[in-house]
Amino acid sequence: MSFRATVLTLYPEMFPGPLGHALAGRALASGLWALAAVQIRDFALDRHRSVDDTPAGGGPGMVMRADVLARAIDAAAPPEDPRPRLLMTPRGRPLTQARVAALAAGPGAVIVCGRFEGVDERIVAARGLEEVCVGDVVLSGGESAALLLLDACVRLIPGVMGKSESGSDESFSDGLLEYPQYTRPQSFEGMAIPEILSSGDHARIRAWRRAQAEATTRARRPDLLAAARHDGPMKEST
Amino acid sequence: MSFRATVLTLYPEMFPGPLGHALAGRALASGLWALAAVQIRDFALDRHRSVDDTPAGGGPGMVMRADVLARAIDAAAPPEDPRPRLLMTPRGRPLTQARVAALAAGPGAVIVCGRFEGVDERIVAARGLEEVCVGDVVLSGGESAALLLLDACVRLIPGVMGKSESGSDESFSDGLLEYPQYTRPQSFEGMAIPEILSSGDHARIRAWRRAQAEATTRARRPDLLAAARHDGPMKEST
Repeated sequence: MSFRATVLTLYPEMFPGPLGHALAGRALASGLWALAAVQIRDFALDRHRSVDDTPAGGGPGMVMRADVLARAIDAAAPPEDPRPRLLMTPRGRPLTQARVAALAAGPGAVIVCGRFEGVDERIVAARGLEEVCVGDVVLSGGESAALLLLDACVRLIPGVMGKSESGSDESFSDGLLEYPQYTRPQSFEGMAIPEILSSGDHARIRAWRRAQAEATTRARRPDLLAAARHDGPMKEST
Repeated sequence: MSFRATVLTLYPEMFPGPLGHALAGRALASGLWALAAVQIRDFALDRHRSVDDTPAGGGPGMVMRADVLARAIDAAAPPEDPRPRLLMTPRGRPLTQARVAALAAGPGAVIVCGRFEGVDERIVAARGLEEVCVGDVVLSGGESAALLLLDACVRLIPGVMGKSESGSDESFSDGLLEYPQYTRPQSFEGMAIPEILSSGDHARIRAWRRAQAEATTRARRPDLLAAARHDGPMKEST
């Protein structure tokens, strides 16, 4: 077992959920990774099993208590546990494919899913949580973000993808969106597959795909190109 | 029923999955929205029920066929169906909270989940698919992205969130990350709640929270500030 995920949540019944099927589900069943979902409420300190309270300073909603989260985190991952501790939150740094690859190469992750208006800020420093954001949207809780993060990680665990599912040539792996794909039938509703793809000239096909990937990225995600330009010199100088 | 979601997938058993629990699950059970998962394979054209084929021009993996997808989309959503048709793909435009709010205010969505190396590009134009990307990561398929998108939409459907779950004051709603939250206990592992939050001076608390939101956004997501500056004048001039 190389990759162990522990998810702290008020809804452990959401796991493995979609990760129990398809590629991730087969890998889970064959022991290539492990998943445990822990009920945060089991670590409440009162007989009402409270996990949240009203925001200090006022405002709508409820905030998850730092003391209850601390107990849950400490039980799931004692200090010597080498796994990174993530907090799914829209306040976090955007998840990248590079971070996913690094997580997949490591021992796993402890993932805290917030609910309500968020978690008491003090838990972040107290337990060294890495705040992670998946998409610039607000969710009802961190659970669907955790499922997405784990799906991205699990496919990169050695042995999970077969040769036919190769992780090469894909979006973000070289800072570009992927080139467009086509398959049979040759003609679909009057639209033909671009002729060059039937040429058998692998060098020209490679060049065409690269040009398509660059053009698509420039049109849709100039931010990725800017980031790649920015990363280049920095990488050379360090 | 105001919001109807239809998901086209090779893994309908992944739905409703996490959306069957908590806030989205209660709303689903009480009829505030509806979800149908459609098996793409049921629209295959041969007796092997093939949905994919090798990429034109070569390369690893398999590509989903445009003709099979077209049949599935047409059955789930005939041309007069007013719902937007989305394709979850890393090649898409990044999902924003503004897009989520617009979707939640509409009749629902038809969501196509790619698998393998992607879908035949021709289906995008043929069925007017809106390509949507959730996070700059590569997934084993579009399913976990669709679940996340729907979670973000459903909470905004009128009647889903109670007063206590108010959607105001949250990240991205005004182009800023949310301010930090605190709740009892007053002292947690030697860390106190910031004094100003106990002052009872609501104007000062509001100003402090705004300053915190701006500082956090500047430190973690300068791209959001740049986008807000960019949007401002453009909105005024149109």
